[in-house]
Amino acid sequence: MAGGWALIVFAHQNPASFNAAVRDAAVQELEAQGFKVVVSDLYAMKFRASATKDDIIGDLKNPDKFQYGEETMLAWKDGRLSEDIRQEQDKVKQADLIIFQFPMYWFSVPAILKGWIDRVLTQGFAFSLQNMYSNGIFRGKKAMLSFTTGSTQSMCSPDGINGDINVVLWPLQNGTLNFCGFQVLAPQIFWGPGHCPPDVRAKLLEGWRARLKGLLEENPLTFPPCEQHSHFVSI
Amino acid sequence: MAGGWALIVFAHQNPASFNAAVRDAAVQELEAQGFKVVVSDLYAMKFRASATKDDIIGDLKNPDKFQYGEETMLAWKDGRLSEDIRQEQDKVKQADLIIFQFPMYWFSVPAILKGWIDRVLTQGFAFSLQNMYSNGIFRGKKAMLSFTTGSTQSMCSPDGINGDINVVLWPLQNGTLNFCGFQVLAPQIFWGPGHCPPDVRAKLLEGWRARLKGLLEENPLTFPPCEQHSHFVSI
Repeated sequence: MAGGWALIVFAHQNPASFNAAVRDAAVQELEAQGFKVVVSDLYAMKFRASATKDDIIGDLKNPDKFQYGEETMLAWKDGRLSEDIRQEQDKVKQADLIIFQFPMYWFSVPAILKGWIDRVLTQGFAFSLQNMYSNGIFRGKKAMLSFTTGSTQSMCSPDGINGDINVVLWPLQNGTLNFCGFQVLAPQIFWGPGHCPPDVRAKLLEGWRARLKGLLEENPLTFPPCEQHSHFVSI
Repeated sequence: MAGGWALIVFAHQNPASFNAAVRDAAVQELEAQGFKVVVSDLYAMKFRASATKDDIIGDLKNPDKFQYGEETMLAWKDGRLSEDIRQEQDKVKQADLIIFQFPMYWFSVPAILKGWIDRVLTQGFAFSLQNMYSNGIFRGKKAMLSFTTGSTQSMCSPDGINGDINVVLWPLQNGTLNFCGFQVLAPQIFWGPGHCPPDVRAKLLEGWRARLKGLLEENPLTFPPCEQHSHFVSI
């Protein structure tokens, strides 16, 4: 029994979707391994996506020169972030593993999940000028993307019309997860399940369950090392 | 006088920000060239970012198997998309040039602008299985990204810690703009203006104004040609 905490950040509108079935499989398999699993069901929570002044409780430091990143960093220090953000940050802090489960929209995450990234991964909490990449704050944690596509796999190959999926995922896997120090596990990609008959979808879920049994033993992806941080200013 | 219509999709919370100054410079320079300029100020409009059932007026085709992409495609055909989406689509239809103006958040657009992309670029309206990339619906229009960063330029070079900016922008420039057929103009990147003294910021704005004078004569970026669309299923 591995134990520990897992967080699944889930971004699909429909509780009967294939994405929901993928999420449920993860909950079951991880619980069977002794994990406590928490799910943030963003649409069900009506999670706010847009980064606004409402994320900060109390007075702004520079109301005339409002800069979201700076104001939320200060609010985080003082415990003045809005309740919904603090709840998600508590879940992240507790988690040993985070799985982002979503349908790919425009070669990235849906806006509601981008909102979770923009609002929850506050400077100070998730990174600092001293703590990023290989020195990142979350280097004791693992994280991964798990998503469905409309495209086929051949369209997202290096010579496919959409380009290499590893390039498509770079801003998320390197710029977000690796940036915060997470050990990034290989993405779980479900290619075009909307166009598969039920038995093929069942097979895809089986494959996912099989992978989950050994997930925590997988080696994380490797990224170019970056020890020269002196030029970094702020995100 | 070039004439025509320009749309600026603007995503910054603060009307006194550098991003707002960049937007205002674009409005002035384009109007001086005879353009009619429309600005969609997403935070001021409280533009909804999340893709939900509320985007569809009337009955869903498959309420139990809700799929956002499919339902909105059908709603678009029948003129049953929500009013806010239809207004933005009217602006896109009219525009000869679209400029996306934003601060980069997590190596991508802020969630509110991702929401504009997810919700406005409906299948049928912005692409179809027959019309994408070089055969894209908007191939008569130009579009570009204009944004500010926290990083320095050297951090976003091919051997910088964030990786090549062209890789970072691939999902937006290729996967979104080129996908819809837009002629994609080179991005306008303002590196770390938050850390520049006022005179340097003024210089950056001057450079932008100078570029705008010849913007419509620029050659668009080139992307690998892709004539084999037969494997595409849906996004």
